[in-house]
Amino acid sequence: MNAYQQLEVHMQRHYHFEHLAAITSWDEAVMMPAGGGPARAQALATLRTVQHAWLTDPKVDDLIHRAKQINDLSAWQHANLLLIERLYRHAIAIPAELVEKVTQTSFICTQAWRELRPKNDWKNFKPLLKDLFQIVKTIADIKAAIFSKSSYDVLIDEYSPNMDTTIIDPIFKLLKDQLPEIIQKAVTQQKSRPIQPISGTFITEQQKALSTYLMSNIGFNFNHGRLDESHHPFCGGISQDVRITTRYNQNDFMSALMAVCHETGHGLYEQGLPLDWQTQPVGHSSSMAVHESQSLLIEMQICRSREYLQYLTPLVQKYFPDAKGITFENLYYHYTQVKPGFIRVDADELTYPLHVIMRYEIEQQLFSNMIEIDDLPEIWDNYMQKYLGLSTKENYKDGLMQDVHWSLAAFGYFPSYTIGAVIAAQLFAAAKKVIPNLHEQISQCEFSSLVNWLRNNVHQKASSISFQEILCSATGETLNPQYYLNHINARYLD
Amino acid sequence: MNAYQQLEVHMQRHYHFEHLAAITSWDEAVMMPAGGGPARAQALATLRTVQHAWLTDPKVDDLIHRAKQINDLSAWQHANLLLIERLYRHAIAIPAELVEKVTQTSFICTQAWRELRPKNDWKNFKPLLKDLFQIVKTIADIKAAIFSKSSYDVLIDEYSPNMDTTIIDPIFKLLKDQLPEIIQKAVTQQKSRPIQPISGTFITEQQKALSTYLMSNIGFNFNHGRLDESHHPFCGGISQDVRITTRYNQNDFMSALMAVCHETGHGLYEQGLPLDWQTQPVGHSSSMAVHESQSLLIEMQICRSREYLQYLTPLVQKYFPDAKGITFENLYYHYTQVKPGFIRVDADELTYPLHVIMRYEIEQQLFSNMIEIDDLPEIWDNYMQKYLGLSTKENYKDGLMQDVHWSLAAFGYFPSYTIGAVIAAQLFAAAKKVIPNLHEQISQCEFSSLVNWLRNNVHQKASSISFQEILCSATGETLNPQYYLNHINARYLD
Repeated sequence: MNAYQQLEVHMQRHYHFEHLAAITSWDEAVMMPAGGGPARAQALATLRTVQHAWLTDPKVDDLIHRAKQINDLSAWQHANLLLIERLYRHAIAIPAELVEKVTQTSFICTQAWRELRPKNDWKNFKPLLKDLFQIVKTIADIKAAIFSKSSYDVLIDEYSPNMDTTIIDPIFKLLKDQLPEIIQKAVTQQKSRPIQPISGTFITEQQKALSTYLMSNIGFNFNHGRLDESHHPFCGGISQDVRITTRYNQNDFMSALMAVCHETGHGLYEQGLPLDWQTQPVGHSSSMAVHESQSLLIEMQICRSREYLQYLTPLVQKYFPDAKGITFENLYYHYTQVKPGFIRVDADELTYPLHVIMRYEIEQQLFSNMIEIDDLPEIWDNYMQKYLGLSTKENYKDGLMQDVHWSLAAFGYFPSYTIGAVIAAQLFAAAKKVIPNLHEQISQCEFSSLVNWLRNNVHQKASSISFQEILCSATGETLNPQYYLNHINARYLD
Repeated sequence: MNAYQQLEVHMQRHYHFEHLAAITSWDEAVMMPAGGGPARAQALATLRTVQHAWLTDPKVDDLIHRAKQINDLSAWQHANLLLIERLYRHAIAIPAELVEKVTQTSFICTQAWRELRPKNDWKNFKPLLKDLFQIVKTIADIKAAIFSKSSYDVLIDEYSPNMDTTIIDPIFKLLKDQLPEIIQKAVTQQKSRPIQPISGTFITEQQKALSTYLMSNIGFNFNHGRLDESHHPFCGGISQDVRITTRYNQNDFMSALMAVCHETGHGLYEQGLPLDWQTQPVGHSSSMAVHESQSLLIEMQICRSREYLQYLTPLVQKYFPDAKGITFENLYYHYTQVKPGFIRVDADELTYPLHVIMRYEIEQQLFSNMIEIDDLPEIWDNYMQKYLGLSTKENYKDGLMQDVHWSLAAFGYFPSYTIGAVIAAQLFAAAKKVIPNLHEQISQCEFSSLVNWLRNNVHQKASSISFQEILCSATGETLNPQYYLNHINARYLD
């Protein structure tokens, strides 16, 4: 075996542990009884330190150097080698103790969040979040010095390589400039829509049955995946075994159903990754921004469209025959209703970016030492007042404690959502050009052309090229927010 | 840290990986979609080789030698050291490739078993079982030479340390001599019982609700455990997070309910192990024979007793109000009905040991080269004819393919069940002496005295002393099958 091949074998072992971490982390969120929490946190911290030891093994550095001398690596092998080097450089920058600490503390913090958020208990949550933030900041500061980036850019790059504040800032500025007016116009126009309440008892079993039916129709393969319940909808597992979750409310099927559509987009991406490269870094998803583009393409571009809701309406009527207000027009009104609210995951398509932008700006300030965790309640309330005209004073539950991300140590993740929405609009616009009757197909729940296009243009590329190169080859240009603005103008302003 | 303390830290890490293996193995059997199987087998094979590398690290040998020189180890530390040495000796005997191979092949075999058993497909299952058997035999033969034991004694010892064929043979001979006559008498006596069929639709949700209610009443702590469904009922997970499974049949609640009672006994044992030693070998269960004694004590001694069924009857009537045949007498008739059948897990208390003894004798012959996997259908049928008067010709599904154990590479496990039943009877006889009104307590579903007695006399001892020492200290004597014979005589022969 040459040096490159030895690295592949080494990374295969690393991937097997990613598999175990993915399944036991999913289990932690979906299945584990609360009393199992501390032991799970310890077990996963040990796993992460073992992976860290493998990555920082001196032989890895040597193999990378020798592999770089090999002349006949294929393009994929070359890309894989660069990604392995990236993993090595990130691992070697950080001592094992910090890896263990951040893993263990994030699980403890997440377990506490599940218990404390419903109690609105910021007082007991704060010290845990402070501890975790301090560890994440220490790691980010160390890497910032080594990689000559800001600490916050380090974090963004962990979720979305080749993404940074210089790409995000102008896009978020554009949205901050244009969204308030679009929102105001949309709210005004929507006042004349004869929206009716949707009511009924939506029993969980029926919601599940409808969800799995829709997932299968869109193209999710249940031989390689599951649908379950958790506090916060997510897509976990590995590409051979994708674990999607949602949460059900017996008084409202709409939120759970769109969460399923969203996570199905993530699942399609995972299931569409190239099987031959599944154990190697180059075979994994390009970035979380591209991941969110796949979920938002399915949720926002497709499932909230008139065409899809035409298909969905009779199904909802069939699964919930006693429900009131289930007409095509009314479903469309609800799924496109613009209304500033407290909760990001329940936000409409127009106010959603403002939720993301405020988190992005708060995180930037946290990691540049302008504010501290103690300041969060006040800062949060100021932003909510400014961007959405709502007060979250003393309402931590629906305020800064609403998201699981910070408890998971996932600072720097939030921008992926809105950048993902921008990518989704750009990809969908390109897909429409090559699949001329796409709208008609959607109204018949016929997704194979679109999914094939996504497979070829996004999923099968995996990490072999950068997200900008994926966009260029799929759409002819790099990231361009104009498609997103066109989309929301077309949908929300007649 | 002295050498002993260093070993404890080393074993802690090993235990964290046992935790991950336990949860991902449970997931494999309970949650995983079939398509995730090959990747899971690989991931767990990698985990097992990493654990093997830790155990066989030359520093472990050195630390054991140095720890043995320390004079002031407590009794528990000393016992722990001996168990660590045992793990070391077992690991060092076997090359890593065999560890990887047996893990991966056993998962592949189990996954195939789930698919092929319902199809009665012995032809396609046989080559997989042959492969796996060959690997297990290679391992057992290597250890047999090193530890100067027969290959089959090596396997028995893996599940139940300090147990071997010299202990098992005379007990099984006694049972083989006495059971046929007891069975015949019981069958004759039972002919005069006015047994009525039990029928109804026992919807799964109601069965689950009754099961969890009974589990809680017996003392299972759901903050540290779950109840789910799988092909074959089992108890997995770790002591802080015990995973019990059963399988439901909407036409018959009785089998699932007793499986739950059985697994609850396992669960109580796991949850009762000493918390301070949870990461060390000395803190784990004494042996699978003792484990089965805890499940059979709950299932056979208690849950199938007149006293418990008196308590259970009105509950069953309440949970299944439309069912027919639910009277105390009739439930007792059904749960003590002696009737030779094909399936071990559905067997009555009297014929069950014959199922175990035939597997024990078949395994002995397999591992002493007297028979081969190819011979199994014929041998199986001969035993079934001889012991139970039934033919399983061409009926592999209900014959040699009925159990998951061999697919899991668990050759040598079966005797644990019947030795467990013998231990259970001996422990229960001792408990009755010190808890005089135990029968009355059971009829009121009041288990705290009994569970406390088990906690103090069995659970909290963990592996600090041998199973014979546990028996001596709890009952005043070593393993004695007379209590089991007394029990079945009292229950089945008036």
